Amino acid sequence: MTKRAGSQTIRLDNKPKIIATTSIVGPKEGDGPLKDYFDIILEDDLNGEDSFEKAESSIMYKAIKETIKKAGLKEQDIHYLVAGDLLNQTAASNFAARDIDIPFLGLYGACSTMSESLAVASLLIDADYADYTIAATSSHFSSAERQFRFPLEMGSQRTPTAQWTVTGSGAMLLGKNGNFPYITYVTLGKIKDYGQTDANDMGSAMAPAAVDTLKQHFLDTGRSPQDYDLIATGDLGMLGKKITIELIKEYDYDLSENYIDCGDEIFDKERQNVQCGGSGCGCSAVVSCGYIYKNMLKGNFKKVLLVSTGALMSPTTSLQGESIPGIAHAISIEFGGK
Amino acid sequence: MTKRAGSQTIRLDNKPKIIATTSIVGPKEGDGPLKDYFDIILEDDLNGEDSFEKAESSIMYKAIKETIKKAGLKEQDIHYLVAGDLLNQTAASNFAARDIDIPFLGLYGACSTMSESLAVASLLIDADYADYTIAATSSHFSSAERQFRFPLEMGSQRTPTAQWTVTGSGAMLLGKNGNFPYITYVTLGKIKDYGQTDANDMGSAMAPAAVDTLKQHFLDTGRSPQDYDLIATGDLGMLGKKITIELIKEYDYDLSENYIDCGDEIFDKERQNVQCGGSGCGCSAVVSCGYIYKNMLKGNFKKVLLVSTGALMSPTTSLQGESIPGIAHAISIEFGGK
Repeated sequence: MTKRAGSQTIRLDNKPKIIATTSIVGPKEGDGPLKDYFDIILEDDLNGEDSFEKAESSIMYKAIKETIKKAGLKEQDIHYLVAGDLLNQTAASNFAARDIDIPFLGLYGACSTMSESLAVASLLIDADYADYTIAATSSHFSSAERQFRFPLEMGSQRTPTAQWTVTGSGAMLLGKNGNFPYITYVTLGKIKDYGQTDANDMGSAMAPAAVDTLKQHFLDTGRSPQDYDLIATGDLGMLGKKITIELIKEYDYDLSENYIDCGDEIFDKERQNVQCGGSGCGCSAVVSCGYIYKNMLKGNFKKVLLVSTGALMSPTTSLQGESIPGIAHAISIEFGGK
Repeated sequence: MTKRAGSQTIRLDNKPKIIATTSIVGPKEGDGPLKDYFDIILEDDLNGEDSFEKAESSIMYKAIKETIKKAGLKEQDIHYLVAGDLLNQTAASNFAARDIDIPFLGLYGACSTMSESLAVASLLIDADYADYTIAATSSHFSSAERQFRFPLEMGSQRTPTAQWTVTGSGAMLLGKNGNFPYITYVTLGKIKDYGQTDANDMGSAMAPAAVDTLKQHFLDTGRSPQDYDLIATGDLGMLGKKITIELIKEYDYDLSENYIDCGDEIFDKERQNVQCGGSGCGCSAVVSCGYIYKNMLKGNFKKVLLVSTGALMSPTTSLQGESIPGIAHAISIEFGGK
């Protein structure tokens, strides 16, 4: 019997369980509206390291180690670690994984990496290739800003459509058993590029990919937006979220009731000077590991669709005049309650 | 029944078939000792594009499209495309996949990406999540050289341990049926870092990872090097290959008879001025899609172990004084003959 549902979706009959999660954020995220849901709030975004890149790596390392500890497991129990981040050559993940004795699969999906790594990590469990896996991602405002945009020291002005890269890392530990939130469907997305070239407006660039993956998930599974208690896109921000709600009306889906965007939620846009909201691999990672997972454990959400979204440009492709390709992967997480 | 063998290896009971492959190389690779095995040799390494990055992307696009055509399939038949490359934010893959209407999983494993993508693409088939998948990678001498080292115009001198990044792309199309070479085991590697800091000597940095994955593959499967007709590491080059043969003796394995390194084979080191040999994601990609696959079809090799190897540093981590983490994934490919 095939495990496929429709053209892009995989049905996970063994329902991999999310046994434990850890969310670590920087001081700014820890001062935002979701602060009570994060496990660790750093006082210093350098986390005791001497560069922002090393700091990002150390935060991911800590998120992974904490998650293994929470689950009462050891590194040897985890069969595969699946991780990625925004740094060139995904250096944050590679240097975090260097000090962890677990076979490693590195991914790059820009800010879609949380749902991409969760997809791969959950499929490894569902197919009986592993007993335990970990999915993890990170981002860091200061390492991303100087890599993708300008030196921090310049203090360059931000455009109204800009988003603030989240400093943080989220890790999820998946296994076969236990009464925990579990994954039922994975919809892997296609790259969509509607010709948007402004790297300071990633929400607009990614919205078409979010719409395409959402639409395909509903078609493949026979579900509608109203079947979910919560639909959460990754980091479209305030503007990208609005575009998504508008564009998906063309397919007769209504997202006006139960839809949030992690980037739109993580900061207080009135008070925290973040323009359109948060972004970065860490954004949907810490919101899903913190706010979403903890509310599922409490029974506040029973069915959640997590749709991390990625803008797949590089500074080089933007300088060479290319537009910004977007991608989104959807993960259906369900839980009847403890 | 578990599908695991030992601590790091997955046994693929459904034996995903490699239905078709394409290898495309630049003029220099097409002038080397393996030239007769490549499908397409470019006359111009810009491939008609106006930048080396766009050229690399166009080569991967062509490799994927050709492979689908060879198999007599259409894009809609392929359920997932799994690809990665060396460019920042894996831009070559993202921009190739943008124009291909297939759900996409992006990976980063540096030069280990061919066996990493082959691992993920074959697991998706083995677990019945997909009917057809494609694994692809690329690299380009000129895009890599200016990103990782110096501007090409500088004409900087190369050290004796340097390797020449292969210009090329390889794609493999996997499916469930047919009389083709098939995948039996996947051993996913751990990151190994022995403290080597010289980015101009990646063979030495990656050799410990190759040794670790090879040793673990033999332990997990109960096989020995002599069970294979050919063992091929990715791009350790002349020096890394020597180190691998020496280091693995500690575990009582003898690689002196049937072991090649793709980077050691692809160029004529006497004539082509490449120091220790070839490197890059494209290296093990074009050698496995060309030389290895075609010799398997002819019955010259019945059992091959492909072990692509990756050096996971970035220019930033090297400038910040970090050593070079290495990784290697092993794929066992077998074929009784047509």
